[in-house]
Amino acid sequence: VNSFSQKYNPEWNSNIELLAKNLAEGNKTALSKAITLVESNKKEDFEKVQLLLKTISELPKKNAYRIGITGTPGVGKSTFIETYGHFLTQNNHQVAVLAIDPTSSKSGGSIMGDKTRMNELSRNENVFIRPTPSGSDLGGVAARTMEVIQLCEAAGFDRIIVETVGVGQSEYRVAEMTDLFILLTLPNSGDELQGIKRGIMEMADLIIINKADGDNISKAKIAQKQIENAIQLMPEKENGCIVKTLLCSALENSGIQEAYLAIEELLENLNQSGYLSSNRNLQLTQSFKRLIEEKTLDYIRQNENYQSLLSLLNNNLINGGTSPYRELQKYLYKIENLKTFDF
Amino acid sequence: VNSFSQKYNPEWNSNIELLAKNLAEGNKTALSKAITLVESNKKEDFEKVQLLLKTISELPKKNAYRIGITGTPGVGKSTFIETYGHFLTQNNHQVAVLAIDPTSSKSGGSIMGDKTRMNELSRNENVFIRPTPSGSDLGGVAARTMEVIQLCEAAGFDRIIVETVGVGQSEYRVAEMTDLFILLTLPNSGDELQGIKRGIMEMADLIIINKADGDNISKAKIAQKQIENAIQLMPEKENGCIVKTLLCSALENSGIQEAYLAIEELLENLNQSGYLSSNRNLQLTQSFKRLIEEKTLDYIRQNENYQSLLSLLNNNLINGGTSPYRELQKYLYKIENLKTFDF
Repeated sequence: VNSFSQKYNPEWNSNIELLAKNLAEGNKTALSKAITLVESNKKEDFEKVQLLLKTISELPKKNAYRIGITGTPGVGKSTFIETYGHFLTQNNHQVAVLAIDPTSSKSGGSIMGDKTRMNELSRNENVFIRPTPSGSDLGGVAARTMEVIQLCEAAGFDRIIVETVGVGQSEYRVAEMTDLFILLTLPNSGDELQGIKRGIMEMADLIIINKADGDNISKAKIAQKQIENAIQLMPEKENGCIVKTLLCSALENSGIQEAYLAIEELLENLNQSGYLSSNRNLQLTQSFKRLIEEKTLDYIRQNENYQSLLSLLNNNLINGGTSPYRELQKYLYKIENLKTFDF
Repeated sequence: VNSFSQKYNPEWNSNIELLAKNLAEGNKTALSKAITLVESNKKEDFEKVQLLLKTISELPKKNAYRIGITGTPGVGKSTFIETYGHFLTQNNHQVAVLAIDPTSSKSGGSIMGDKTRMNELSRNENVFIRPTPSGSDLGGVAARTMEVIQLCEAAGFDRIIVETVGVGQSEYRVAEMTDLFILLTLPNSGDELQGIKRGIMEMADLIIINKADGDNISKAKIAQKQIENAIQLMPEKENGCIVKTLLCSALENSGIQEAYLAIEELLENLNQSGYLSSNRNLQLTQSFKRLIEEKTLDYIRQNENYQSLLSLLNNNLINGGTSPYRELQKYLYKIENLKTFDF
């Protein structure tokens, strides 16, 4: 078992190798400092982060698993993670909890409301909780979270929980950076289950029906059957996981052990089949390719000449007497003659 | 009711206005000739097509509906369309059948096997069947099919059926160019239903279980229940359609009238709610935007400098000690300094 410390060292500002060394020794304050560096937009911090990532990549690695958790607001993600997190530490794990919250940058506030969450868990010595990073775009925030995962693992955390609100595109990003993806839902009947997007259910390796307590138990069992029926209709998982649906009450502390055991079994299977490590390499190159193409398009979309060209062609379309195919050809002819994509 | 003719006129080659005029009078040979022009890659044909589209856009328009039909190979799409097509003509409709087959360009052959299909329907005077266009990329083929739809409508066809094999991305393109999207499936149990991608089921406005005949009827009813359960879990359709699941046997000619009535009712509702016309405008601008961005990215992906830059950054990633975010920043820094996206 790791033992974590908290002592601050002012030398970290000028000595990145020392910061990396202390972080790797399990200093949580060094970890926080490193994450702040990662989240910085200052130019001078960029080289520091590069050195930091290089230094920690040369350290010996501990086996760590990355667990994604999603669910719509109100499903009880915080309460579940609080209970599950304590359970993990009782089983000799070191737990880091990160969040990707697509709502925080838009609304100024956050659906997740970090400050008041997981009070007890945050006082657990073997737990590290990092509030949602701020940022203007999901792609950038997600890419930085991948760095934060690297840092947490270097600091000795072996169960990295990345949670997100299942309301946008963020679930896909979280699935792209985790080994296992868990969907939390409520004991709702079919009508209310409509809120879960099909794509998210398809991504899930495990579905947990939370708040299955008191009067809700029979409702939860009906929901379980419905979800199991829906799973039957889905294609087999590429990673070989057989998707289970479990009942759980974070409030009554029931079903947590079953969830823990199911998660550990799935992770172990993924590890032993070799899927986990090959998948991490794939995640790395695929998410990078998508990131690059996304940002390239963003860059082009902001180009004023591109914008006016596009609105010209769009006007042609709306006025009629042409077609997307013909307008596309005009556009292609124009850019091929420019030959200016000179990387 | 329209009456169609077939007489060829050699003047069409030099007189596009005449071609457009004869096409609009219901000359099927003129329609075929116009479609061949649309599918041509010759430079001199490009201006002809522009003139053709402009001319027909100025003609008075008849109310026509566009119906997309998808289903995996073997589901009996041809037999269904053959039976349904005859039924439409018996109800005073003029039917055009088009296909988008993503397999035809890759394999040289076609899953759909156009030549032997719908023999009887093709002899029906009020039906026009156009074989799958060839082409190297789906985006381009789909964009040209939108032009073919315009031509068919100008020629007086009021039910345009666009069919596709549900094995790739083509269903999304077909959904993008039609008013109503129908999924054809078989009387299979849950296990076999897995083949249907969730996204496709979610796009469907109507699901028809084909081959519900003989010994299959009880299996078909079980499948119907399963699909209805799955639909319960899906979000409400944006277009307001309440998704039904119907049984049908094209072979025994049963359930076709029910399918016809259900389709007509859905189309009428879409028309009366105003969704249909606003959706067509949206389809036009959205599919154009996607087409432009897709082709722009394709163009950039082929750029050798881009490729070598990307593989350099990818190597950094695989060698470790960095992250997608850091490598992205290097890339962005490089392209921002180039300032060469000069449209």
